[in-house]
Amino acid sequence: MAAKKERTAISPTRAENFPEWYQQVVKVGELAETSPVRGCMVIKPWGYALWENMQRVLDRMFKETGHVNAYFPLFIPMSFMEKEAKHVEGFATECAVVTHTRLTMREDGTLEPDSPLEEPLIVRPTSEMIIGATYSKWVQSYRDLPLLINQWANVVRWEMRPRLFLRTTEFLWQEGHTVHAFAEEAWEETERMLGLYAEFAEDFMAMPVVRGEKTEGERFPGAERTLTIEALMQDRKALQSGTSHYFGQKFARANDITFLDPSGEEVHAWTTSWGVSTRLIGGLVMTHGDDDGLVLPPRLAPVQAVVLPVIHQEATRHQVLEFCEALKRELAALRWRGEAVRVEIDSRDLRGGEKMWQWIKKGVPVRIEIGPRDLASDSVFVGRRDRSPRDRYSQKRGEFIESLAETLEEIQNHLFEKAKAFQDSHTRVFDDRDEFYRFFAPQDSQRPEIHGGLALAHWCGDPEVEARVGEELKVTIRCIPFAENRNPGRCIFTGRPSPQRVIFAKAY
Amino acid sequence: MAAKKERTAISPTRAENFPEWYQQVVKVGELAETSPVRGCMVIKPWGYALWENMQRVLDRMFKETGHVNAYFPLFIPMSFMEKEAKHVEGFATECAVVTHTRLTMREDGTLEPDSPLEEPLIVRPTSEMIIGATYSKWVQSYRDLPLLINQWANVVRWEMRPRLFLRTTEFLWQEGHTVHAFAEEAWEETERMLGLYAEFAEDFMAMPVVRGEKTEGERFPGAERTLTIEALMQDRKALQSGTSHYFGQKFARANDITFLDPSGEEVHAWTTSWGVSTRLIGGLVMTHGDDDGLVLPPRLAPVQAVVLPVIHQEATRHQVLEFCEALKRELAALRWRGEAVRVEIDSRDLRGGEKMWQWIKKGVPVRIEIGPRDLASDSVFVGRRDRSPRDRYSQKRGEFIESLAETLEEIQNHLFEKAKAFQDSHTRVFDDRDEFYRFFAPQDSQRPEIHGGLALAHWCGDPEVEARVGEELKVTIRCIPFAENRNPGRCIFTGRPSPQRVIFAKAY
Repeated sequence: MAAKKERTAISPTRAENFPEWYQQVVKVGELAETSPVRGCMVIKPWGYALWENMQRVLDRMFKETGHVNAYFPLFIPMSFMEKEAKHVEGFATECAVVTHTRLTMREDGTLEPDSPLEEPLIVRPTSEMIIGATYSKWVQSYRDLPLLINQWANVVRWEMRPRLFLRTTEFLWQEGHTVHAFAEEAWEETERMLGLYAEFAEDFMAMPVVRGEKTEGERFPGAERTLTIEALMQDRKALQSGTSHYFGQKFARANDITFLDPSGEEVHAWTTSWGVSTRLIGGLVMTHGDDDGLVLPPRLAPVQAVVLPVIHQEATRHQVLEFCEALKRELAALRWRGEAVRVEIDSRDLRGGEKMWQWIKKGVPVRIEIGPRDLASDSVFVGRRDRSPRDRYSQKRGEFIESLAETLEEIQNHLFEKAKAFQDSHTRVFDDRDEFYRFFAPQDSQRPEIHGGLALAHWCGDPEVEARVGEELKVTIRCIPFAENRNPGRCIFTGRPSPQRVIFAKAY
Repeated sequence: MAAKKERTAISPTRAENFPEWYQQVVKVGELAETSPVRGCMVIKPWGYALWENMQRVLDRMFKETGHVNAYFPLFIPMSFMEKEAKHVEGFATECAVVTHTRLTMREDGTLEPDSPLEEPLIVRPTSEMIIGATYSKWVQSYRDLPLLINQWANVVRWEMRPRLFLRTTEFLWQEGHTVHAFAEEAWEETERMLGLYAEFAEDFMAMPVVRGEKTEGERFPGAERTLTIEALMQDRKALQSGTSHYFGQKFARANDITFLDPSGEEVHAWTTSWGVSTRLIGGLVMTHGDDDGLVLPPRLAPVQAVVLPVIHQEATRHQVLEFCEALKRELAALRWRGEAVRVEIDSRDLRGGEKMWQWIKKGVPVRIEIGPRDLASDSVFVGRRDRSPRDRYSQKRGEFIESLAETLEEIQNHLFEKAKAFQDSHTRVFDDRDEFYRFFAPQDSQRPEIHGGLALAHWCGDPEVEARVGEELKVTIRCIPFAENRNPGRCIFTGRPSPQRVIFAKAY
């Protein structure tokens, strides 16, 4: 017998159709929408404010670890792409190529491209090549190192199957590009930045991640080693959420980045790059969102508490609004986690229910409804986004103000713990190939919801085995996790020896 | 008899060759450099930090006036450019056209564009057209208005004669795009944003500006009215530094932006747009820079005070560094104009003179040199960037710390006053055509330096007269100034009536 179904703000629900639920949440949560340009999105003010908060925190973390920002050209000459074979392979099939620099009007008033370029330009899919050419001039001596630079930018990778935030032709990101005089230092940087991403994901996004290294087949094109953080979404697919690459001397060789060491010898430098993108917003949606819409972790929410005047009659309008304005001022003077609390008041003339639901769908952590009765009792009526929309409570005004910082802290922690519990409960260890196959390709079509997740299994390291599992199950090795005990064992596919378990999952 | 020439850090000097002086200052000031992509620049960390400070202040000003940020696609479908004739004319001759979405490798290992697009895409030269298409969906009712959105973005306009910051194929900017239910409100917004730019230029950049309106010939393509701030550079050319456009209902018609007014009638909306760009950095250089390099106004300088340990012998190294570190901590704890003072310590092992000159060339407002003798007397040796490099003074440490905020304030004001005096002394009123021509085309080739500037003169309003002056003198009407007394008179070119004087100048 099916339980009585509660009405939810989002239809379909996660269980009914996760991909469609995602689109709906992004839409009604006012994060973004598709644009007239295929594959490119419009990031709406609410979505962009979320991105600004992410940027602000990450930028501070980058600067605290000694990095500075700079800006490099949007375009890359086509010949630069030829320098590093793997890099071409990785990006040549999905790029925007500029071939003309002028439009001419035909007689019928339509336009056509004119003034062809001698050498076409590629809109950057990533900036290793253009930055490499610049660094080869900047780096001359060991005294110029380390060079620790980050760039906030838009990049373009042509997407045939775009999805808002997760796969868009244009997306926003940051890309760090560093140069070092020593291999060890470059490797430490690669690890440091992955750690920083993991800290950001867990402490700010409240999104638990697995830290690990990519297999050769999943590495960034041209990198010697790629580190990754992987998060488990509520549909039990993994989302690669941030990567940090160690290039050894490969990119320095391709781009002629050399320096004179203290003994006067010319040496190729060691380089790294690392990045996260607006894809993180997709991860946030799929980690915390529920069947009523977005759920935003307080540390990143553009508005942490919204005050909603409930006006039934004109007679009390003025009083209610005044009470709300005063409350807003008091709340805005509070501090949480070293920052002023972000409060907004929504005094639009809308039905109270409609107004409340808009803020629920937008994921605001705390809602405060104020009607004439609350004024009389000097109370507020509080809703928390980490609880059911029906689970609201009245609280004395002073008490509420006093406890708001604590409430935000609770919500932040609660979201992380809930997501962590989800990740834990869908992480399984496999020592048997058939069980592994059943996990990812369930026999029981009545209960498709109970399959999939993060699967820890021994693997012999053979890329062909990895490729076969990929073809048969659409499952990839997400990473060789750092945290896993490095106990050797036997590959569940071939029986050959394996140094440690790796993590398999379906992925975005 | 020529005065004895002092050695300067920049060669040539401003008087010798202003354009070349500019390139040198940008280079040795470490602001930016040319890139392997023709017309595109690399903004170096010092230049980008300056831009970040500009962004931070402007972004706060936009938000305080009710605007929010969003992000729209980099690409514009070619057909969108056909919607508004003037807009096409203005931008079609200088744009980057994407025609392919893939690269294929030839047998010889070189690449060629592949997968042609059905409809080419233009890399945005400005976003009116793509934002207009989006707004036509967002705006339905008067309740949706006003829509007050800003975007921070890169834009591309193909430049045949690029100059760093002043004219680059790619540049960074912000573009505000607003929609209103009333003509008056849209006009007020146009004026408000120009006022905000003027305030930013004068109060933060210390760059005096003239506020005014463009003539029809100088208007933004498609705008009904364009407001501008114009600044006078040290070579007596004007730099258009920020513009704010009123479109009336023209763009709303071209993009079908309509709303239902309270009576249920469908009406075309009124729109505005406004922007400033990295060009402002060029303006800053040419307003304050001197023959020793950059001079940065304290409110925008990435570093306001730099501590320079002078280490002559290893014996005192530790002591000097410790004294410097302690000083840095004390200075960083100070506040000026509501913000923490930005201090850096440069303890690289360089000759003291070389180190000092690097910071002079980078324009840092206050330098503090510390050697063993200063320790003994608990003093600091101070240099101010608004004074000669030779004009340094010793001050008791405590006194210096106590007065730093005041010193920064003095420098900020001094830079503005100096620039204002320059502007005033090169602004002249003309009532005679021949004198006007002599001002801009001097007969005395021995004293070329005394010509040019801002010329106030009556003009009858005839675009042909404006065009002829432009052809003959390379002088354009920069604006019809707001501040000028609106006294009617006679056009100095035709003798016909003129409602008020306008400002002519050579321009960037």
